[in-house]
Amino acid sequence: MTNSHPFLAMAHKLADVARPVLQSYYRKPVEIDVKGDASLVTIADREIERAMRDMINAELPDHGILGEEHGSENLDAEYVWVLDPIDGTKSFIAGKPSFNTLISLCQNGKPVLGLIDQAILDERWIGVTGQASTLNDKPIKARACKHLKDATIFTTGPDLFITTKAIAGYKAAFGAARHPIYGIDSYGYGLIAMGFGDVLVESNLQPYDFCAAVPVIEGAGGVITDWDGRALTINSGDLVIASGDARCHGEGLDVLQAATARS
Amino acid sequence: MTNSHPFLAMAHKLADVARPVLQSYYRKPVEIDVKGDASLVTIADREIERAMRDMINAELPDHGILGEEHGSENLDAEYVWVLDPIDGTKSFIAGKPSFNTLISLCQNGKPVLGLIDQAILDERWIGVTGQASTLNDKPIKARACKHLKDATIFTTGPDLFITTKAIAGYKAAFGAARHPIYGIDSYGYGLIAMGFGDVLVESNLQPYDFCAAVPVIEGAGGVITDWDGRALTINSGDLVIASGDARCHGEGLDVLQAATARS
Repeated sequence: MTNSHPFLAMAHKLADVARPVLQSYYRKPVEIDVKGDASLVTIADREIERAMRDMINAELPDHGILGEEHGSENLDAEYVWVLDPIDGTKSFIAGKPSFNTLISLCQNGKPVLGLIDQAILDERWIGVTGQASTLNDKPIKARACKHLKDATIFTTGPDLFITTKAIAGYKAAFGAARHPIYGIDSYGYGLIAMGFGDVLVESNLQPYDFCAAVPVIEGAGGVITDWDGRALTINSGDLVIASGDARCHGEGLDVLQAATARS
Repeated sequence: MTNSHPFLAMAHKLADVARPVLQSYYRKPVEIDVKGDASLVTIADREIERAMRDMINAELPDHGILGEEHGSENLDAEYVWVLDPIDGTKSFIAGKPSFNTLISLCQNGKPVLGLIDQAILDERWIGVTGQASTLNDKPIKARACKHLKDATIFTTGPDLFITTKAIAGYKAAFGAARHPIYGIDSYGYGLIAMGFGDVLVESNLQPYDFCAAVPVIEGAGGVITDWDGRALTINSGDLVIASGDARCHGEGLDVLQAATARS
């Protein structure tokens, strides 16, 4: 059983462009630039996004693009592709295969198609609104976890919670959950969607960091929102919580809101 | 070029026992027990260590064994095998392939042979005292990184630094380094040995968590000690720092000692 969407084939084509580039640069010394926001970028990030944008411009000239490395174009279009050639560039540079290529299609600002691709482990998660999510074309499902106190909780690193509000939320959520696991990058969305983790909490994100996760998590039976419980769109802020079980998500939101109200 | 040691073939045989068990339980729901020290154990941990111990007892009855799951025997022997069937059990359970099987042989308490095996990614690091370390039989080498301020630094999670001293050291080392990467488990030793990370700092470790790393790191040109700069043995304490470059290691020790002296 596979997903269907008029632009799913395009999403696969874009990911297929990224894979060989990532495989060729992986665990080779690459030149690293530090961007204005102190995040890292490599020639691989730029080369992949350039190729993906060229393909979209050539085949779907009416579609908009929001990318991490080369900015925005035509954001008023009905369909906008949201691209992160390498989410987890720091992990990519360190040879740690938790980075992913993230590709999503937003329709009127709402993510309706999401693809998470791990080029080294040959893993591709697909989500389409209203359909069961898949990993390598096999349906996947989040697991039940009623209470946050029993949850395996993911994040990338404590250093990514920077504002007072974000730090308060991170500490409260991790303090209330059972098993903390760090260093997860966007790989955590895939693990929750397939039932091997329960909650993910991040801050300091951009739309290209989370849009692809929305259809994947929702199509696996999970919930993903901002810390106020609002649905994520291409215009959402930087605070994200994803859960495999809606009951646990509710508890997570309560904990985040109580902590951030006090901060 | 491969390593040689009278008991290297035995180390490979032990790792070969672990691999199919790990592969068969990976990303399947497994029963999880919580041990007295709050760490997790699965049937896979116990099954693998039992099989490794039976093999050592049958083939090398004069050798001692120190294992995570089934205790110690004959620790006064010249040769003692130090076994961790799954280092990073929490990652194993979450389907995150940073866990490893760790096997080392100590001679009069000193680790002389170390094996780090990642069963899912098909990666096996070998270190033998006085020889170049290898990954899948190819020689590897740590990279130059003179100063801690330029270093990529690894650890598993901030929650594993529990004592006042450990917390002070962790915060100081991570504050002084450039790129923090979390969630690394013992995979970080392998990445440093192959030149994709610079420093690893951990606390709360047992000998079976670090003995295998000693010959791997040293044979790649790196340095691994406790936080006081002492060589690691089967009797060392729980605080470990590993570096690819001795100069950076010296700076790391200075930072740890200054911070922990104040704590």
